[in-house]
Amino acid sequence: MNFPSRLIEDAVSEISKLPGIGKKTALRLALHLLKKDVNTTQTLTEALTALRTQTTYCLKCHNISDATLCRICTSVNRNQTLICLVQDTRDVLAIENTGQFTGLYHVLGGIISPLMGIGPNNLNIDSLVKRIAESQESDTPVQEVIMALSPTMEGDTTAFYLQKKLAQFGIKMSTIARGIPIGNELEYADEITLGRSILSRTDYK
Amino acid sequence: MNFPSRLIEDAVSEISKLPGIGKKTALRLALHLLKKDVNTTQTLTEALTALRTQTTYCLKCHNISDATLCRICTSVNRNQTLICLVQDTRDVLAIENTGQFTGLYHVLGGIISPLMGIGPNNLNIDSLVKRIAESQESDTPVQEVIMALSPTMEGDTTAFYLQKKLAQFGIKMSTIARGIPIGNELEYADEITLGRSILSRTDYK
Repeated sequence: MNFPSRLIEDAVSEISKLPGIGKKTALRLALHLLKKDVNTTQTLTEALTALRTQTTYCLKCHNISDATLCRICTSVNRNQTLICLVQDTRDVLAIENTGQFTGLYHVLGGIISPLMGIGPNNLNIDSLVKRIAESQESDTPVQEVIMALSPTMEGDTTAFYLQKKLAQFGIKMSTIARGIPIGNELEYADEITLGRSILSRTDYK
Repeated sequence: MNFPSRLIEDAVSEISKLPGIGKKTALRLALHLLKKDVNTTQTLTEALTALRTQTTYCLKCHNISDATLCRICTSVNRNQTLICLVQDTRDVLAIENTGQFTGLYHVLGGIISPLMGIGPNNLNIDSLVKRIAESQESDTPVQEVIMALSPTMEGDTTAFYLQKKLAQFGIKMSTIARGIPIGNELEYADEITLGRSILSRTDYK
């Protein structure tokens, strides 16, 4: 593309480095900012700078946090004996929005993926082991670890690795249920999910 | 959504004000910036600030420009007697990328749209009239005005208004050809376009 000005060329080039944003969308966003008054751009850039320079991670669960420990880890209303393992912050938000989970989290920061060069050492696994070990000597020992990882090959590999790694503590380990999403038509479900949902059927209580 | 930190909440709120970006995409972009090092965010915010605060518009054609007059208006290789009317900078870029046009542009800054409250006075029409009037007394009088507006009701209204307004100069006025896009199958063309393409057929030379 031939840009009429170096400024817009630079802006488009930087915006299009963001994931899922191509040159055309970047240009649309840049022209949008040009149309709006200066404050719009200023508030946006300030929010981004503050986010990047001031955000810290919770020392305990590695979730994004304003302080040393996050709101969830310091809450007295959460069940300290239940830890949900997730891949990243987005998953914490997704689970929090369901309102169904009252325990704590542990953000792994990714999943084991040999193809992408991500091994167990690149994830927050050591701190998880340490955290559970320390809890065993406290008033609120961890009693269950729920693995809420993606139902993919990488997710399953990570879950398998963690099961081996945490076996020493003899605590309960579980995974979130896989099955037919609520509201979906049975006939449109893929074979693997449908097959698995029959094998892991739930008894009526 | 319940955000774990006020910083990420502010960033998501600002990013999602951009057109076509919702809360979920905004969160993905914010988390992406958090993962990358500080320089990524810094270069992005600096490019946006520079774009918004330093960009000027060409005094002659109202295109985005680095200086008082844009690269196209000051080029000696362009045909000064031909003006292409477009809605905004994006259209200039699109036409420039075809490499088929060697004249100058005039960016209207929108099209007449009573529904959106945009009338002729909100567009760069007075400056166009003045520009053509002044050119008539120079060495390079404007000889043709090409209307490259969208083939919509608003585009046609604007073109009609401009024809009336520019009639006083007695110069040639034309519109870009409408017809079947090159490479498209005839059977998939819509009726209005196909009908118009028969009426405005071109003789073999």
